[in-house]
Amino acid sequence: MTQLSNYTYDEISIGQRASFERKVEERDIQLFAAATGDVNPLHLDADFAATTRFGERIAHGMLTASFVSAALAMRLPGPGTIFMEQQVRFRLPVRIGDVISVELEVTEKEDKRKAVTLACTARNQDGKAVLTGTAKVVAP
Amino acid sequence: MTQLSNYTYDEISIGQRASFERKVEERDIQLFAAATGDVNPLHLDADFAATTRFGERIAHGMLTASFVSAALAMRLPGPGTIFMEQQVRFRLPVRIGDVISVELEVTEKEDKRKAVTLACTARNQDGKAVLTGTAKVVAP
Repeated sequence: MTQLSNYTYDEISIGQRASFERKVEERDIQLFAAATGDVNPLHLDADFAATTRFGERIAHGMLTASFVSAALAMRLPGPGTIFMEQQVRFRLPVRIGDVISVELEVTEKEDKRKAVTLACTARNQDGKAVLTGTAKVVAP
Repeated sequence: MTQLSNYTYDEISIGQRASFERKVEERDIQLFAAATGDVNPLHLDADFAATTRFGERIAHGMLTASFVSAALAMRLPGPGTIFMEQQVRFRLPVRIGDVISVELEVTEKEDKRKAVTLACTARNQDGKAVLTGTAKVVAP
């Protein structure tokens, strides 16, 4: 198992950044559908997807949102992070084979609850923002 | 495959409700971790989780958030739904074996973009809200 490290509340400063990269594999779509019960044919059925505005299957929006969550849990603050709130806006479709880079930046700290707010952007391999949002977490 | 139906924008009215139920299985945690890359030990490592405020492993917050997304994609509006925005607040931990019921209620319609806003609540088997939030989607 990979060694994981984290940043405690006191070690986190406004403007601090982190990133997390993940390629969307066919397998991930199948696993995500099985885990969540979301078997929307837009994600699983090529014939159905061909009839939509996207023209082909796309990844579940929440799969990309979960990459943001993974970035928070794995990078900044890292393991021990407790999620309070997440807000996401889906901007562009994510296709199988896309390489998604999540960028996090600390925008606020709230000492009383050890709460940290981060701006979150997920970009595809062309640098285009596919998802933007914010997250509020309790740091370890 | 189960037959899926949906509600088009014109068929949706303010106050309309739908629900979606899902039991959190051990398997779902493993699949979700594999799909998203979020291998935070809080979800996967019983010994680590025992040292946290939760005392045991809990489900990824985004797994529960994805049940909300599944409810939108599978029930209301149903297949063909396009996600615009989702906002969630995590209120209580979800444990393996919990049965989560997602309740949706239409709160706004925006004719120009065929956008529908829904209030979303996920409750556990004790009726306690584990997640609350809103979602904005384009209806089919």
